[in-house]
Amino acid sequence: MSLLMRKKAVVLVSGGLDSAVTLFYAVDKGYDCHCLSFDYGQKHMAELDGASLIAAMAGASFRRVKLGLPWGGSALINEEMAIPVGRMPEEIKRGGIPDTYVQARNTIFLSMAASFAESIGAESIFIGAHYEDSSGYPDCRKEYLEAFDSVLKMGTKKGVEGKLHLEYPLIDKTKSEIIKLGHSLGVPFHLTRSCYSGTERPCMECDSCILRAKGFSEAGIKDPVFK
Amino acid sequence: MSLLMRKKAVVLVSGGLDSAVTLFYAVDKGYDCHCLSFDYGQKHMAELDGASLIAAMAGASFRRVKLGLPWGGSALINEEMAIPVGRMPEEIKRGGIPDTYVQARNTIFLSMAASFAESIGAESIFIGAHYEDSSGYPDCRKEYLEAFDSVLKMGTKKGVEGKLHLEYPLIDKTKSEIIKLGHSLGVPFHLTRSCYSGTERPCMECDSCILRAKGFSEAGIKDPVFK
Repeated sequence: MSLLMRKKAVVLVSGGLDSAVTLFYAVDKGYDCHCLSFDYGQKHMAELDGASLIAAMAGASFRRVKLGLPWGGSALINEEMAIPVGRMPEEIKRGGIPDTYVQARNTIFLSMAASFAESIGAESIFIGAHYEDSSGYPDCRKEYLEAFDSVLKMGTKKGVEGKLHLEYPLIDKTKSEIIKLGHSLGVPFHLTRSCYSGTERPCMECDSCILRAKGFSEAGIKDPVFK
Repeated sequence: MSLLMRKKAVVLVSGGLDSAVTLFYAVDKGYDCHCLSFDYGQKHMAELDGASLIAAMAGASFRRVKLGLPWGGSALINEEMAIPVGRMPEEIKRGGIPDTYVQARNTIFLSMAASFAESIGAESIFIGAHYEDSSGYPDCRKEYLEAFDSVLKMGTKKGVEGKLHLEYPLIDKTKSEIIKLGHSLGVPFHLTRSCYSGTERPCMECDSCILRAKGFSEAGIKDPVFK
């Protein structure tokens, strides 16, 4: 199909595994993909370096937006707060919200994506939020994503015209299912990073590292980050 | 009431009339108000100079965030697009959206306000959107604001805890009702600006100027901008 015929999509990419799988999924569905990533002062900036390579490998355009959030307050951006070690305690998974929560992060990302989508005439916005994250982060839950989809449909010009909506294809998948899907789509897992700490090698102590290792193990696939 | 006892609110201010009335309304309701304004490349930057003065007169804190939207596409930020002259045509008011629409603007503003509110522990976010604007801008409609309130309640830590919501007290008011309310609250109208064009004197040709003049006329109040 010629590029002019393909529908456009904006895909939020972080350099992490989930957004890489989401990007390759959208490309596989035939979308002309335009990646958007944010530099918001996160500690794990190394993710972003991978994001542009991943976008290039998917044949997608890539744009990084520097986003000054003059107010800090998450372990992911605040040097004074330590990254929690280990899987999140059960009490957090039962309704609490972890220290790594960044205030209204996905809402800010999605609102910027909405603006970008309108300016380039994209009909879909893809986000890689999923079930296992949603145990801790309210802005990864399906009900939240449905509410934001309503915001798009009621509060944007393209949305009112029925030409802009939100897609979250990973929402009900486990990490191992996401890894299997990515494997079948040829996602370059060796370029993706998940560690919260931003060290050269994954720390294997933070929640994100542990979730990733568990996912690869359950999927029966070797994580190429460990060569 | 001591400052420590008062509930905090984030108020979106632009330097325009509607947000000034909203700010004085929130102060009158007893909130400790924290104003947030955005420099997003709009032509009428003169508004922002007034915003900090208006905040000071309301006894509120004031913070301006520079927001790079690398994609243009509205007559309010794009030098190549002319500001439309005159009241919006009826066909626009019946469902079309004017050229002065900035892609997903209020969604971006509100998402930044949500993040700021969480960081300072504010329980309310005030926006001065209202009925007459909503004829043209989808992100000024009540249904949109209700949808964004759902996003706050489902997608933020404070919202999930029942401690963050959106208030839009002007939504059902006409411009003249807003002006009467502001008059009773002592809003310094002489510091507010409405003109889209950014010229020193109001152009009296753009939709915003005409709406303001009509509002003052109907309210039977003299606009102090014209000394």
